[in-house]
Amino acid sequence: MCQLLGMNCATPTDITFSFRGFSQRAGVTSDHCDGFGIAFFEHKACRLFVDNQSAVESPIADLIRNYPIKSRNVIAHIRKATQGKITLENSHPFMRELWGRHWIFAHNGDLHGFQPQLSGHFTPVGNTDSEYAFCFLLDQLVERFGYQEPSIQDVFQVLQEVAPQIAEHGTFNFCLSNGQALWSYATTKLHWIVREYPFQHAQLIDLDVEVDFSEVTTPEDRVAVITTEPLTQNEQWTAFRAGEMILFQQGRPILHAMTTVQRLIREAQDPSLRRISKADLY
Amino acid sequence: MCQLLGMNCATPTDITFSFRGFSQRAGVTSDHCDGFGIAFFEHKACRLFVDNQSAVESPIADLIRNYPIKSRNVIAHIRKATQGKITLENSHPFMRELWGRHWIFAHNGDLHGFQPQLSGHFTPVGNTDSEYAFCFLLDQLVERFGYQEPSIQDVFQVLQEVAPQIAEHGTFNFCLSNGQALWSYATTKLHWIVREYPFQHAQLIDLDVEVDFSEVTTPEDRVAVITTEPLTQNEQWTAFRAGEMILFQQGRPILHAMTTVQRLIREAQDPSLRRISKADLY
Repeated sequence: MCQLLGMNCATPTDITFSFRGFSQRAGVTSDHCDGFGIAFFEHKACRLFVDNQSAVESPIADLIRNYPIKSRNVIAHIRKATQGKITLENSHPFMRELWGRHWIFAHNGDLHGFQPQLSGHFTPVGNTDSEYAFCFLLDQLVERFGYQEPSIQDVFQVLQEVAPQIAEHGTFNFCLSNGQALWSYATTKLHWIVREYPFQHAQLIDLDVEVDFSEVTTPEDRVAVITTEPLTQNEQWTAFRAGEMILFQQGRPILHAMTTVQRLIREAQDPSLRRISKADLY
Repeated sequence: MCQLLGMNCATPTDITFSFRGFSQRAGVTSDHCDGFGIAFFEHKACRLFVDNQSAVESPIADLIRNYPIKSRNVIAHIRKATQGKITLENSHPFMRELWGRHWIFAHNGDLHGFQPQLSGHFTPVGNTDSEYAFCFLLDQLVERFGYQEPSIQDVFQVLQEVAPQIAEHGTFNFCLSNGQALWSYATTKLHWIVREYPFQHAQLIDLDVEVDFSEVTTPEDRVAVITTEPLTQNEQWTAFRAGEMILFQQGRPILHAMTTVQRLIREAQDPSLRRISKADLY
């Protein structure tokens, strides 16, 4: 289906190391080669790069591997198309503006029959279930808070109520950021790690590359990395539990919540109910 | 201040030739070196590249000069900062979504005291008069048409009413596109040209580069280029009149209108009234 990569940091950090490993999965160590996208927040600005070439072959991905953009919040996505055309308008991440901030969203999974009425404020440009879900999430935030910007904790509260409703319709792993923080949610597969002082070395799984973070960091640095599958072989990654939501800020988790997805409970009790979805075949 | 470049085409066309000349003005033939941006529509998708390095030195601009992205609608902007910090969030073009389409806007000029109430639907991320004007324009479109997408001609009608109101506050040259068409407006300086069959050769002003378009085109191609200052020395560019709005579609102007900007009339009658603005010093 696809894979997600998110990064949330205490200080502006370049994602070159993680992206080098991650992008190998777009044709070398895995076959997620139907396009990619990556968004970098720099203060309130956001740069979004998408391409319908693979992250291995795309000249845009090559630029990103070689032009270190320092950012506190990054979300990237590589795609393996299982349904829908490989078109740019269907490329994750998606971007919208709300409350004078850009919002970036990338999703891993398939949703089935999720077509609630949208207000019209946010309308999908492409035809993916993912962009539809993103517009719905933002609609719910506007319904709750109007045009008065809430705190990131208040946003967490609403997402915690809305995400499990969407997750009733299928696999719903996502990363969302507005440049201040990164909200992440998983129903099947997502992992996270925090790198902080004293930093260690790390060895990529997908590429024979090793870095000693202690040589390229300061004690003030702290980086949380969120990804579908762990990127390094010598670090301890933590798996999200099914229905877990985590809010990252300043490079660490600051809020956790477990949500109840009725579908997951039914499926746990009776595996024959389990929806067969290509989204689950990583 | 800055310079604008727009392109609207009958068939997907790469802007490499024009952008090569245009980007020379970011430090070589002129000093518009405080960042640049360029947006390409590909069907409904839109790719927006911005950088706070100059379009001469930026690796992103280099990618664009060498990676031909074929598009029917392109808007680019190079900046010479006269006020405001050189930050990415203040980089043109700006992007928003409305009616399930991306909208791209770039402005040349300074506006003074233009701070009408915004609805909250569209909020500036940075602090430029330009992004504020863009949000105001989109607000006016929603006020007029709600969440029902109008025709491009209907949009032209509203812009024709709203643009001169904004132009009362200063220099207001802009390019706007939603991927279907390109709306352009000038109060001081903007030029346009249509290249079509039988194509001729063209010689850039800013770089010793010549192209024979007849060798790289088909009879179906037709390209309108809109720019602050003409890009070629051997072609006939048409200057916008003060207050002129033109809608381009399929590579040609399909609607013209002259708007009345009272400020321009007063200034024409009494040059001593003329607002002294760095925006006018190209």
